[in-house]
Amino acid sequence: MSKELGIKTSKKKNFSKWYLEVIEKAEILDTRYGVKGFQIFLPTGMLAIDNIVRLFEDSLQERGHMPCLFPTVIPQSYFKKESVHIKGFENEVFWITHAGKNKLDEKLVLRPTSETAMYPMYALWIRSYTNLPFKLYQKGTVYRYETKMTKPLIRGREFYWIEDHTAQKSWEDAEKQTLEDSEIFKEVVEDALSIPYLFLKRPEWDKFPGADNTYAFETVLPDGLILQIGTTHNLGRNFSKVFKIKYTDKDGKKKLVSQTSYGPGISRILASVIAIHGDDRGLIFPPTIAPIQIVIIPIFTNESKTKVYEKCAEVLGKLEEKGFRVHLDDREQYTPGFKFHEWELRGVPIRIEIGPKDIEKKQISIVRRDFLERIQIEEERLEQQITETLDSINYQLSKRARESFLIQSAKDYDELKTKLKIGGFIKIPFCMRESCAKKLKEKLGIDVRGTIVGKREEVNGKCIVCKNKAKEIAYVGRSY
Amino acid sequence: MSKELGIKTSKKKNFSKWYLEVIEKAEILDTRYGVKGFQIFLPTGMLAIDNIVRLFEDSLQERGHMPCLFPTVIPQSYFKKESVHIKGFENEVFWITHAGKNKLDEKLVLRPTSETAMYPMYALWIRSYTNLPFKLYQKGTVYRYETKMTKPLIRGREFYWIEDHTAQKSWEDAEKQTLEDSEIFKEVVEDALSIPYLFLKRPEWDKFPGADNTYAFETVLPDGLILQIGTTHNLGRNFSKVFKIKYTDKDGKKKLVSQTSYGPGISRILASVIAIHGDDRGLIFPPTIAPIQIVIIPIFTNESKTKVYEKCAEVLGKLEEKGFRVHLDDREQYTPGFKFHEWELRGVPIRIEIGPKDIEKKQISIVRRDFLERIQIEEERLEQQITETLDSINYQLSKRARESFLIQSAKDYDELKTKLKIGGFIKIPFCMRESCAKKLKEKLGIDVRGTIVGKREEVNGKCIVCKNKAKEIAYVGRSY
Repeated sequence: MSKELGIKTSKKKNFSKWYLEVIEKAEILDTRYGVKGFQIFLPTGMLAIDNIVRLFEDSLQERGHMPCLFPTVIPQSYFKKESVHIKGFENEVFWITHAGKNKLDEKLVLRPTSETAMYPMYALWIRSYTNLPFKLYQKGTVYRYETKMTKPLIRGREFYWIEDHTAQKSWEDAEKQTLEDSEIFKEVVEDALSIPYLFLKRPEWDKFPGADNTYAFETVLPDGLILQIGTTHNLGRNFSKVFKIKYTDKDGKKKLVSQTSYGPGISRILASVIAIHGDDRGLIFPPTIAPIQIVIIPIFTNESKTKVYEKCAEVLGKLEEKGFRVHLDDREQYTPGFKFHEWELRGVPIRIEIGPKDIEKKQISIVRRDFLERIQIEEERLEQQITETLDSINYQLSKRARESFLIQSAKDYDELKTKLKIGGFIKIPFCMRESCAKKLKEKLGIDVRGTIVGKREEVNGKCIVCKNKAKEIAYVGRSY
Repeated sequence: MSKELGIKTSKKKNFSKWYLEVIEKAEILDTRYGVKGFQIFLPTGMLAIDNIVRLFEDSLQERGHMPCLFPTVIPQSYFKKESVHIKGFENEVFWITHAGKNKLDEKLVLRPTSETAMYPMYALWIRSYTNLPFKLYQKGTVYRYETKMTKPLIRGREFYWIEDHTAQKSWEDAEKQTLEDSEIFKEVVEDALSIPYLFLKRPEWDKFPGADNTYAFETVLPDGLILQIGTTHNLGRNFSKVFKIKYTDKDGKKKLVSQTSYGPGISRILASVIAIHGDDRGLIFPPTIAPIQIVIIPIFTNESKTKVYEKCAEVLGKLEEKGFRVHLDDREQYTPGFKFHEWELRGVPIRIEIGPKDIEKKQISIVRRDFLERIQIEEERLEQQITETLDSINYQLSKRARESFLIQSAKDYDELKTKLKIGGFIKIPFCMRESCAKKLKEKLGIDVRGTIVGKREEVNGKCIVCKNKAKEIAYVGRSY
């Protein structure tokens, strides 16, 4: 499609512009579709999405979560049942009112999330304690009529996610489920994608509509803004009450299930990968999800062409056999230099160059995308070297990302103001009252993102806003 | 979920009832969702769908087709552009008219198919002959307001498919693309899923709205009714004219591209797998797409329990390592007999039984789902035997399906009437005029499905309806 390869913006100087430029030139998305907030995933973006989804599916299925697919539309009567939930979503759903030339008897909403689609069925399916825990997930797009400014992969009216809905025997089991969800998230996002994040418990006033507890996975983009990339909610018995989801326990008594709803935001996770790992030449894909892990570029003269292509084909075959995702770039209309730039832009982790001199010396040139460092290796060490280099790229991406992951602390209001200029998360002593959070929002434009999960942090001193005794260490900052 | 396992209906005696019973009890779909024609894919159904999709994606990507994802909604202005196309679909689309509390400035349709979503973008993307052929596909659900009676996986208002859209230099290249599409279809549906079908050219009056030529992939279900399971269309320049999709050719001239649109119907392909391969015990999955290929059932007494479980775990590990999809059924609340029935119902190709006597004799019992035949093998031959048995199941399913694939011939009207009682395809000499096709429909309720592709069939005699000279051998029959 587009053939202008150079990224003209410096990531450091203007992250926001750099991000849009990379998304466009590396052909992740096309944002020119005729409906505001709806975008097209191009092949590189789609393959990355599919690879991220597959990592989550493996991790989910290993823990007994099974795939399903519910309809994209929810009848109004289902959607209206849980009153807090509908209040949270009624201003942001799309309504289907007609079909063909007929007005529908009952209006339908395009799913903004699937609690109200799924739970009437859970009430039919769940009978006994032997059915529990009951764990189903689905992958796909959901639809929200966003009124804020949209931004590719970060805020749109259609986005890609996985939603996982479980039913449990007790409220405590539901709470434990949210921890399993965080394990899954760690396996994929931290371990495989090398993206650091915090797992935070949202304050009371910022919970998912219908949840008892909301937990969020949040990272920081290079502009210092916090980005929520997933959530998991302990829904308690709020939905099981209204949808009448009951099970017969061992003691023969009918009880309401407790529920959880978990949503890794696949679009936003891809956004983080692009934003955090990329550089001024474009994307850098972690090898785990790179649509192409290794690209082979033949370099030849008229005399050496046949020999070079033969060697390229041989190397391609060997690496494919080992299960690597390899591509041989045999386009004749482009120079090797042009190809180097293109595959750098598209974030391919390893480039292999094969020329006549390499063949003579029985060696191969390898260039890794993160450091753009070239090494020459003996041909027979190729497969071993590729494995090591791919591992090393994942490791180095993770190291780099962790080093620049911004968590600061502030003891008082002035320090907070100063540290805000740097961005990221700022830890503050806080009273955990909504009124103080509102003041922070009004005066500094920052949000209270929550408290850290799984670690009791020592609190001394006073709330940074009201000067009353601080109850928690809260993580605050400017956010998307 | 449901725990009633026995299929009560004979497939032979009442196919239609048997089909619904299998879909329900094997937990492929749940049809009780609150919107007519919209259904829920349950885990077994969803895993099978995902596996079929993966086979198609492999085959498509091997031939240079790349994945993308367009929005689920199409603005009215895009949708209305091609006049024949809109006429064909305007009575069967869902309209989104409102969002939140606002009326939308422009109405949106839920995609019934994506030509009008994709082609405005093709006009932006395609510039030069070097971009051609241009091949993109997407997977997902589409929405049609069906007014005919719905039937699970066969006719619904939301169904799962892949749609693949290419742009080509010439009309002839587009025509060739439809042959590549048929190769892909063969690789997946005939070779991997063991489903026989015909590749037919639709008559003029039954083409896709906006196509120059329509080709259909059609199988026959055990009730003798023909089922279309995929189509591919040569759209010629009908869409490129209105969407202005042009490329600069080698000679420097601007030309309109020719296009194709290819749609393997994933839901209906799964329907065929269920309908054609299944038997009175339930599903039989071809090993290529079986969510579980091998189930291990431990059979033990109190004394032998530990030993049996150890052996089961060992076998499970070995087979998983080889890449088989294996499941160990260690549920304690069910008897082995109950488990046998359940996994037979769910179509698992191979069952392994491990008991204390088997362990003593260093042997393993294997039961294959198609013949329900039990063999005892030496433990050390296990992996080899599993591979052979899985191959054999695919082969035998294919053989069985081909043997009962109904193609008959009729020379005159009376013979046609007689053969109709048996069902399937009936070959007739035909004049290829719509008026005669209409008579067949009115009098006998049968459709002219088309003529065979890639084979010139000799035509002698007169049209079976009007007695004028026959032009083609047409394939006719009752259909879904």
